Amino acid sequence: MAVERDKTNWCGWGWQSMRYDFHGHRPHFLRWIGGQLGIDALATSTPPVAMDSFVLPAIRLDDADLAELAAAAGGQGALQTDHKSRVLHALGRSLPDVFRLRRGEVTAAPDAVVLPADEAAVIAVLQLCRRRDWAVVPFGGGSSVVGGVEPTDPKGRPVVTLDTTRLDRMIAFRPEDQCATFGAGIYGPDLEAALAAKGWELGHVPQSFEFSTLGGWIAARSSGQQSNQYGDIVDLLVSCRMVTPEGVIATWDGPVSAAGPDLDPFLAGTEGTFGVITEATVRIHPKPATHRIQAVLFPSFAEGTAALAAIVAAGLRMSYMRLSDEVETETYLKMSGPKRVQDMGLSALRLLGYGDLRCVALVGTEGTADTVDREVAEAVAIAKKHRGLSLGASPAKNWHRDRYLHPYMRDDLLDAGIATETHETAVPWSRVAAVREDVRASIMAAAAAQGRKAHVFAHLSHSYATGTCIYFVLMYAVDAADPLGQWRPIKAAICDAVVRHGGTISHHHGVGLDHKAWLIHEKGPMGLRMIAAARRAVDPTGICNPGKLIDL
Amino acid sequence: MAVERDKTNWCGWGWQSMRYDFHGHRPHFLRWIGGQLGIDALATSTPPVAMDSFVLPAIRLDDADLAELAAAAGGQGALQTDHKSRVLHALGRSLPDVFRLRRGEVTAAPDAVVLPADEAAVIAVLQLCRRRDWAVVPFGGGSSVVGGVEPTDPKGRPVVTLDTTRLDRMIAFRPEDQCATFGAGIYGPDLEAALAAKGWELGHVPQSFEFSTLGGWIAARSSGQQSNQYGDIVDLLVSCRMVTPEGVIATWDGPVSAAGPDLDPFLAGTEGTFGVITEATVRIHPKPATHRIQAVLFPSFAEGTAALAAIVAAGLRMSYMRLSDEVETETYLKMSGPKRVQDMGLSALRLLGYGDLRCVALVGTEGTADTVDREVAEAVAIAKKHRGLSLGASPAKNWHRDRYLHPYMRDDLLDAGIATETHETAVPWSRVAAVREDVRASIMAAAAAQGRKAHVFAHLSHSYATGTCIYFVLMYAVDAADPLGQWRPIKAAICDAVVRHGGTISHHHGVGLDHKAWLIHEKGPMGLRMIAAARRAVDPTGICNPGKLIDL
Repeated sequence: MAVERDKTNWCGWGWQSMRYDFHGHRPHFLRWIGGQLGIDALATSTPPVAMDSFVLPAIRLDDADLAELAAAAGGQGALQTDHKSRVLHALGRSLPDVFRLRRGEVTAAPDAVVLPADEAAVIAVLQLCRRRDWAVVPFGGGSSVVGGVEPTDPKGRPVVTLDTTRLDRMIAFRPEDQCATFGAGIYGPDLEAALAAKGWELGHVPQSFEFSTLGGWIAARSSGQQSNQYGDIVDLLVSCRMVTPEGVIATWDGPVSAAGPDLDPFLAGTEGTFGVITEATVRIHPKPATHRIQAVLFPSFAEGTAALAAIVAAGLRMSYMRLSDEVETETYLKMSGPKRVQDMGLSALRLLGYGDLRCVALVGTEGTADTVDREVAEAVAIAKKHRGLSLGASPAKNWHRDRYLHPYMRDDLLDAGIATETHETAVPWSRVAAVREDVRASIMAAAAAQGRKAHVFAHLSHSYATGTCIYFVLMYAVDAADPLGQWRPIKAAICDAVVRHGGTISHHHGVGLDHKAWLIHEKGPMGLRMIAAARRAVDPTGICNPGKLIDL
Repeated sequence: MAVERDKTNWCGWGWQSMRYDFHGHRPHFLRWIGGQLGIDALATSTPPVAMDSFVLPAIRLDDADLAELAAAAGGQGALQTDHKSRVLHALGRSLPDVFRLRRGEVTAAPDAVVLPADEAAVIAVLQLCRRRDWAVVPFGGGSSVVGGVEPTDPKGRPVVTLDTTRLDRMIAFRPEDQCATFGAGIYGPDLEAALAAKGWELGHVPQSFEFSTLGGWIAARSSGQQSNQYGDIVDLLVSCRMVTPEGVIATWDGPVSAAGPDLDPFLAGTEGTFGVITEATVRIHPKPATHRIQAVLFPSFAEGTAALAAIVAAGLRMSYMRLSDEVETETYLKMSGPKRVQDMGLSALRLLGYGDLRCVALVGTEGTADTVDREVAEAVAIAKKHRGLSLGASPAKNWHRDRYLHPYMRDDLLDAGIATETHETAVPWSRVAAVREDVRASIMAAAAAQGRKAHVFAHLSHSYATGTCIYFVLMYAVDAADPLGQWRPIKAAICDAVVRHGGTISHHHGVGLDHKAWLIHEKGPMGLRMIAAARRAVDPTGICNPGKLIDL
């Protein structure tokens, strides 16, 4: 059962029914963060416009075109051109996307949305678009935060958005080979439900889990919250099928091959610019019996970082491992309210040296009861060597319970005039401290240049032997006159700082439109040239998701 | 200290000083295997010709060309054109290569060998070759068994072989980031010695370890004997630099990125057809304290296979895990002599059901004493559920001691008129039985069509959650009149059988010339088209290792 888009928030994150409601339930936080940013957030109210209140660009396909498109896609039911469908496929869910939606400033929308129900229909749509020179934007859950699904074409061609969410079947279940095959448009919960019915799971849980699809995860190289244990989506990918304008690419279905370049990790990350992923085979495992997560307090971010690196180096595959920096630790405590600080006895810890720089980490794993107990104990023992103090399981339980809630925060803070932006990178362990400092300082400087303050915090997640992901969150008071113009230099300051330290422009969100200018720092001119050449071989006229990732 | 090629066997495997000497030391095995093949192997003697006894094709570069080449490569000392150097760079070490060397039928040799000592010299050589339209064949240890280093060009251009083994320095040691950077021409033992001096290791030990280089491992997507624990070379690869005719590709130096296609697993496996790998950063780990390996006897190959799959599924990362089929088990026992059978009490086991179909497996790992004991015990317990009987550590010790010796066997058996060929594939677990049967039957049928018998055995190694490598060994009596003509249909029969079951044409040896015709079964026409396009972007005139892997 796919996500019912009617019940989702058309101009923000997730379900309409879910809200943080800071004004009503957490005024103490609005008071505090307003103080940090120098505004009265409690007194501010900037709600979104109504969806029907704005006009979308005219549809550039005529009735005959649309009839032809419907026929290719599988019939009239597979075509949408109404206002709401166009709005729901007009943007992803990045901060600038949400700005534009909330203000009704939607300057591009698909000329048509098609919803093919099988690969044959996907092929027919791509062949038609190739023939007519229409652009095709593949669209899964639409949760891109990098401008990855924007229905625009630098060449100005009409744009057909290809919604994959009817490709949502479990196609094969092969427990003997520890893998299963799914239609690429299946949402996270449906995929896990199909496996859970057999006692198995994939274990890939990005924060967008409920609103993103298997194909989207692959196209944008997603990482899940448990990827330390199970691997990122690229590690879980066994094989896939991609429909391109020149034909279908089917990658090899087997464990490991030495026969030439590996196509799966090359197609993963093409973000729809090579074609449409229609199905994928992924590695699965029997549902673990239990999980256990503990919170650990470190006196400083440096010590916490060293502990995480040591835990990975010891070969412990923690499914959950996350270290908040001192500002994030403080921010979440403020959000929980003063009572929480007392509950955790944190005030008392100040005396023991866990003061203003204290950082909370979560460490946990899943498996059999024995394994889980032993591995968490080993991880906590390593943490102790770096002055980590166990806080027990209780703070970790809250995080686990609320792990899909955080993205909702942004919309409610926008109601109070506060922008929440995120950016993540990955670097070798030795560069964590430097990149954190530089990104923080660059954000502060960019905000200051606009006469504003910024509140910046970060956490480590997705740790590897050779390095880690570092995820930044920043909050600042929105310039209601020009939120996009205000956002751009801040975004650029972050990206510049990241690449200065050799960080990737994205650890798990992709490139899209927003990171494209910085891709050359990572791939180099020769790398980009190779990728573009490969794209040209399968999409010679550049109709697939034009403008994103890389040009022909 | 690189390998001294003077001390290596110019027409076979490894060191000149190492021999199996079946005639002298293991006549019982020659008697037995001769019986299997219907020949008198003991009475047969077919030694190789002398290296000076044959003439190589004339050098097609004149003195001015050679002077220019030497200048580009770094001086006169970086150029070789003598008979011996040309012979040593004329072929790899596949069975047909060895046939041709032993018979002095070397129809192609490099017009010159260059040995650049730094990347600048590699760039200069490639630019010169690009300008003059000379082919360039990158050459590391020269241990290719797929025709990967043959100095031939379908277009008939002069061929310069670029020997990388002077690019053999440790460039960076970064324990904090669990990685180190090396020149790509460093041999396995030198690389491990450099790390061992610091208490670290890479842990990548292909059977060619002593005679192959880091760059060769990456170019041909090597797997080591301990790759179950540490990963294949592609998993260990953090970043690399490749000099192409159009410029240098430098991949991103960091753990994991979502920014577009991953270039490392795409360049790994290009087999010199895109350019020359000059350096690579690889994941390393502190040297483990200890290792432990046990032998386990299974009553059948099917039960052993199920046990290996279950051990991997349980998340146990055995660094050593190998299952011989019943014919391999019998063959190694015959090689050890009748005494060994008594030592192991195998005759008695027949009564317990471990009869003609019994299969020996080795299961082991390395790490701390505690971990190793626990994990091996867990693996043996899983084996027990599949009727695996522990034989203790003693048979495993012999294997570990002799693990680099097996490739020598081929030369000594050739002296007795017996060819030993190998071929490996990887398939999902569910196809192991079928592919083993079909490959066996196809080899027998191909030999029978030539009026011969073949002795065929197999083992599993390199196991993954989703499948396993299966490695075949076959022995047959050589047709002295036309060994290559005899070999070709046998090779084709194996490759046809492998791809019939969806197996990869190579799990860890690559494609080269020998497997090229079967690559399309794995990559498909669209996959090949993409790879060729990417190659064309960096090597537009196809001068890099022409004829191998893929054409422009």
